Amino acid sequence: MAPVPTIKLSSGYEMPQVGFGLWKVDNPVAADAVYNAIKAGYRLFDGACDYGNETECGQGVARAIKEGLVKREELFIVSKLWTTFHDREHVEPIARKQLADWGVDYFDLYLIHFPVALEYVDPAVRYPPGWQYEGDEIRRGKATIQETWTAMEGLVGKGLVRSIGISNFQAQLIYDLLRFAKIRPATLQIEHHPYLVQQELLNLAKHEGIAVTAYSSFGPASFKRFNMEQVAEVGSLLEDETIHKIAAKYNRPASQVLLRWATQRGLAIIPKTVRPPHMACNLASIEFDLAEEDIATISAFNRGIRFNKPSHYFPTDLLWIFA
Amino acid sequence: MAPVPTIKLSSGYEMPQVGFGLWKVDNPVAADAVYNAIKAGYRLFDGACDYGNETECGQGVARAIKEGLVKREELFIVSKLWTTFHDREHVEPIARKQLADWGVDYFDLYLIHFPVALEYVDPAVRYPPGWQYEGDEIRRGKATIQETWTAMEGLVGKGLVRSIGISNFQAQLIYDLLRFAKIRPATLQIEHHPYLVQQELLNLAKHEGIAVTAYSSFGPASFKRFNMEQVAEVGSLLEDETIHKIAAKYNRPASQVLLRWATQRGLAIIPKTVRPPHMACNLASIEFDLAEEDIATISAFNRGIRFNKPSHYFPTDLLWIFA
Repeated sequence: MAPVPTIKLSSGYEMPQVGFGLWKVDNPVAADAVYNAIKAGYRLFDGACDYGNETECGQGVARAIKEGLVKREELFIVSKLWTTFHDREHVEPIARKQLADWGVDYFDLYLIHFPVALEYVDPAVRYPPGWQYEGDEIRRGKATIQETWTAMEGLVGKGLVRSIGISNFQAQLIYDLLRFAKIRPATLQIEHHPYLVQQELLNLAKHEGIAVTAYSSFGPASFKRFNMEQVAEVGSLLEDETIHKIAAKYNRPASQVLLRWATQRGLAIIPKTVRPPHMACNLASIEFDLAEEDIATISAFNRGIRFNKPSHYFPTDLLWIFA
Repeated sequence: MAPVPTIKLSSGYEMPQVGFGLWKVDNPVAADAVYNAIKAGYRLFDGACDYGNETECGQGVARAIKEGLVKREELFIVSKLWTTFHDREHVEPIARKQLADWGVDYFDLYLIHFPVALEYVDPAVRYPPGWQYEGDEIRRGKATIQETWTAMEGLVGKGLVRSIGISNFQAQLIYDLLRFAKIRPATLQIEHHPYLVQQELLNLAKHEGIAVTAYSSFGPASFKRFNMEQVAEVGSLLEDETIHKIAAKYNRPASQVLLRWATQRGLAIIPKTVRPPHMACNLASIEFDLAEEDIATISAFNRGIRFNKPSHYFPTDLLWIFA
């Protein structure tokens, strides 16, 4: 297997360009998924409080380390600060809880998951807290992004996290963050697939030295379990005829074409699967190169369609965070 | 003529729903345009440092007041803080200069023009400063939005402006602003036309009690003088067959249909024309109502096309403010 390329972050650390995404990895299979992914060659694991499986993921890591498959320092463990923990006094305690869940003493990268603060929920009451405070009620919090980012910087100072970054942020807030940040965000994680190409945001990130990680690289396929009408309205990218023609040209599966399109655009990717053959297949997407014309053909799928919006999961007038 | 409806702002003041936009009103005709617009019944004037015509606009106001057409307190004068004056120490001096240019001692509404700070340019050196520092060079400034907004709040405290607001802000930055604002933004001014419907941003503004003003209500027609390829690629709304069919149904010109579509969606509008008959015509757009089905037909034009981006006027990798 070809070595996984890395991306040099502004923090000085190297981040694997292909990692393993832990969103929607169900608890009963999460430990095995992480363990098998390490066996398959994955070193980056992209977790989050909100995924509700950090304890199990940590068990998978522990088993792999115990069996000598990998050392902690060879792994790149990513986690994310949930929206209910944005107040300055909650950032360090929750990061410490998440580290304890993973069974590690530092995260390689810790991201603000969404650029919106919600009211604190005590982890003893409900964990992960999710979006709703009680029933359907959304309660926004008081923390500014500057307050939260400053607390994130404090985690670096204490050695709890090596790099810090942001997720689901758009340009205007990134520009503002860059004005008050003492530590610049190392990475930006965004929804990115051929229906949501986000070229201008990538231009911004490149110019500002922020590495970009793509999530939901397969587009609608990543949202199947949510029965979104937005998903039903568009065709599957994995079954698209044009994608298949390109795939046939390289004798590769459509999934590899979608992933390679992203990595050739300079992004890191974090595909998820719990099936070991697919794990290997996704990782092997770096082993071939798409011609520029094929990259352009895939980029021309862009329709500005974003699936991962709070309003697509539940009715709310408080979270128009991508408007 | 029907009285112009007003929108009650969170500041307690009433803002006319139909006003007169001063962008691209050339200096030699600006005084006459304002004077004639007052004669035609306009009371709200939407100006800005960047339009480079505030002195002439003030002359038009002065003439109308001198002739007894209107009193200052019957007018609603809007101006905007340019990007190069975002540092806390520059906000009040430039607001005072703009007031002096207009020849008034308060603005009814003062907006942050764009959510990005650029390096200060002394008005004695160049005024209005524009986007570029020298030649093609863009220099970003150091001020955060919080710093600038706090200085804007200071203007209210000093009685220099009655209401303050924002322009060209998107959701994430608005949510953050609402966390640190002691005075909430009274209005949000945005590009808005059938090709850029921005429903989610309107939902946000409505929920947060922020009045929205639409600019460039005619869409591509507002950008003709810039020879943008983005304009060439889409059809004229004023000459669109569907718009014309709707217009014929009400026996109204297409321009009134586009304006009425916006005001029936709850927005304030600021059409611009230097021709008195068109002034009256735009103002009279409130005198009829579109049926819901026609509003829906026009809203379905939405293609997410934004014309007013810095990158459409000049090449830059520093101002991806709508990404």
